[in-house]
Amino acid sequence: MGNCIVAQSGGPTSVINATLAGVVKGNQLNPIYKTVYGGLNGIEGILEERFVDLTNMSEADNYILRQTPSSALGSCRYKLKRSNVADFEKLFAILEKYDIDTMFYIGGNDSMDTVYALSEYAAAHNITNRRFVGCPKTVDNDLMVTDHCPGYASAAKFIATTALQTWLDVNVYTRQEVFILETMGRDAGWLAASACLSGIVDLVVLPEIPFDKDVFLGEVRKCIAEKNKCYVVVSEGARYADGTYLAAGEAKNDGFGHAVLGGAANAVKDLILSSGAASRCKVQDLSTAQRCHASEQSLVDVEESFKLGMSGHMRSADPKFTGQMVGVRRKEGEVYDVEYFATAASNVANHVKNFPVEWALPNYRGVTKEAIAYMKPLIQGSPVVTYKDGVPAYVKPYYMR
Amino acid sequence: MGNCIVAQSGGPTSVINATLAGVVKGNQLNPIYKTVYGGLNGIEGILEERFVDLTNMSEADNYILRQTPSSALGSCRYKLKRSNVADFEKLFAILEKYDIDTMFYIGGNDSMDTVYALSEYAAAHNITNRRFVGCPKTVDNDLMVTDHCPGYASAAKFIATTALQTWLDVNVYTRQEVFILETMGRDAGWLAASACLSGIVDLVVLPEIPFDKDVFLGEVRKCIAEKNKCYVVVSEGARYADGTYLAAGEAKNDGFGHAVLGGAANAVKDLILSSGAASRCKVQDLSTAQRCHASEQSLVDVEESFKLGMSGHMRSADPKFTGQMVGVRRKEGEVYDVEYFATAASNVANHVKNFPVEWALPNYRGVTKEAIAYMKPLIQGSPVVTYKDGVPAYVKPYYMR
Repeated sequence: MGNCIVAQSGGPTSVINATLAGVVKGNQLNPIYKTVYGGLNGIEGILEERFVDLTNMSEADNYILRQTPSSALGSCRYKLKRSNVADFEKLFAILEKYDIDTMFYIGGNDSMDTVYALSEYAAAHNITNRRFVGCPKTVDNDLMVTDHCPGYASAAKFIATTALQTWLDVNVYTRQEVFILETMGRDAGWLAASACLSGIVDLVVLPEIPFDKDVFLGEVRKCIAEKNKCYVVVSEGARYADGTYLAAGEAKNDGFGHAVLGGAANAVKDLILSSGAASRCKVQDLSTAQRCHASEQSLVDVEESFKLGMSGHMRSADPKFTGQMVGVRRKEGEVYDVEYFATAASNVANHVKNFPVEWALPNYRGVTKEAIAYMKPLIQGSPVVTYKDGVPAYVKPYYMR
Repeated sequence: MGNCIVAQSGGPTSVINATLAGVVKGNQLNPIYKTVYGGLNGIEGILEERFVDLTNMSEADNYILRQTPSSALGSCRYKLKRSNVADFEKLFAILEKYDIDTMFYIGGNDSMDTVYALSEYAAAHNITNRRFVGCPKTVDNDLMVTDHCPGYASAAKFIATTALQTWLDVNVYTRQEVFILETMGRDAGWLAASACLSGIVDLVVLPEIPFDKDVFLGEVRKCIAEKNKCYVVVSEGARYADGTYLAAGEAKNDGFGHAVLGGAANAVKDLILSSGAASRCKVQDLSTAQRCHASEQSLVDVEESFKLGMSGHMRSADPKFTGQMVGVRRKEGEVYDVEYFATAASNVANHVKNFPVEWALPNYRGVTKEAIAYMKPLIQGSPVVTYKDGVPAYVKPYYMR
């Protein structure tokens, strides 16, 4: 009986620890590994042998871990480059040193590329006793193959709830006003679209639909004419037909070659005010809070994320199970139900699953019934939150212990 | 048996409707008035005779009303000016027309000035059959005399929770980073201070403490040197010793002569980056969400707000009870407990209760134990939230019916 290691990478979500909790609990219920190591700060920390022992986590700690947002093991943006052979050699030496059979990597599509690259390397070097298993997470919901991504639903629930609440707020005055809610979503409009679950969104601007200023401002004018208000949701990744981001003025780079965005809502505000389409605009950028607001997790999200961790763990009993990502498949039928499956990490790595353009209504007027039918089951249910001193109780991050 | 009217004014809170629910329930339990009218959009709508009948609200609706954020009757920023005699004459004529004995006005210190002005007018004109009763609300917690203000605790709970969650988020990476959380609080630091309930705040910038750039940046450098991170909370009303707001570049006016602020956090970010105190800063402006995020209300806040409505209603049985605001008095003793009382609205109108400077630790290093002991009991408990389709169930605003 060898050991396993589990690590987290990329931007955190409010349920990324539920998947970690699932791996740990899976091994307690069905011991495949002697020790479950936690690798701190993803690949970056594993290469520095920064490990913690999670094997005997108590049930109480496991429960609190599930409600704790943001990667409890820490994260990294360190990209394992295929050309950097030294990193690969070092990593495999560490796995050997600690007798680690399986590495579970919880992350988004960059992390799935890491799983893919490590399994490729092992195959190319006839290393048959190391397995690499990916567990998905991303608030962006943009991973291929899986029906949806752990972390998305809880962010969507918070976004839809905040849309509803701020809409109530902006309507209390009779004065003319546009409210603009900015969500994350660099390349995919899933998060912005989720605001439509509130039922109050007038206009939604997704990255998938090229932004036509005149059409958009025309719709703002219609809303103002009709009710003196307009509730707009805009994705940080909203862009013009030529690919220029609305927020282009603030574009930077995160080290992976991704643009770091911000300010799409302010760009829309400037357009509205300067065009005279409305006389007053208020902006709410949900920013970091939307991906870590764990006190209103979706119960469906928490349970699926936990079970995906268990599923990955269980599948790894097969010595040939490597280079795979576990995912969620939605079953046919009226009542929402899922099953878990696995797909090659290469099917997921470096791809983006966009929000279907056919699910967007014309002229930014929201999303179709099909989109709502897809999203609504995901945000159902609320876990019972354990509080301490009036704020939610969270585990102390392992990287701080 | 005459009638009463209840209306809401000023910026909404997440529990302003709990006070409304309390007035309605109070009259159901102890009928003083034949009809409980709701006046839409505060004084503005009352002058237009835009009323709804709330007398027989069901218990189910009353419960959902308590969890619904933002003024369900609508609000206004219309200021009743003492010089505008026509408004006063019109209002008293309307009260006579509808046989309204008592007007309950739920609002902040501008609203208390309205209560004061109306009772003064009545006294000056020997009108003895109209009573004006104020019920406090403001997320800013800056009303005099009352121990604290309905709405503050729920906003504080959300701010402290968000601070904790975003702190977990910013710490997952090993890179150097300052996180800056901006809260409301035009003149008073109560909301910014509430973030300290999370236990993770490094530096807090309150309006009451003149901002000294060099001292502040020195503390940022110390945090960075110690742990490569710094968690900063800044009030929108933060200002230099000469009174200039940090966010001065964006100052506007809301019609009451108050500056409308925004951008204090971005101003701090610019200072930090341009000084080289840290290489990376992230900003989260809680904006509108902090005052309407009702899905994590403080149970203490909801219950007190409801009971204040009942208290105001009950006290108004006394024909001489006018020009008064009901408030909360904290009892002596180890265990948090309160009683309700009334004070002249003139004691509250147009005053501001600041965060005590002696409760701020030197060099922006947070708040004292006394401050925590004051705030902590207020954010305790969580109401059971009723959901519908995955988002909280809210009443449809009366001004939209």
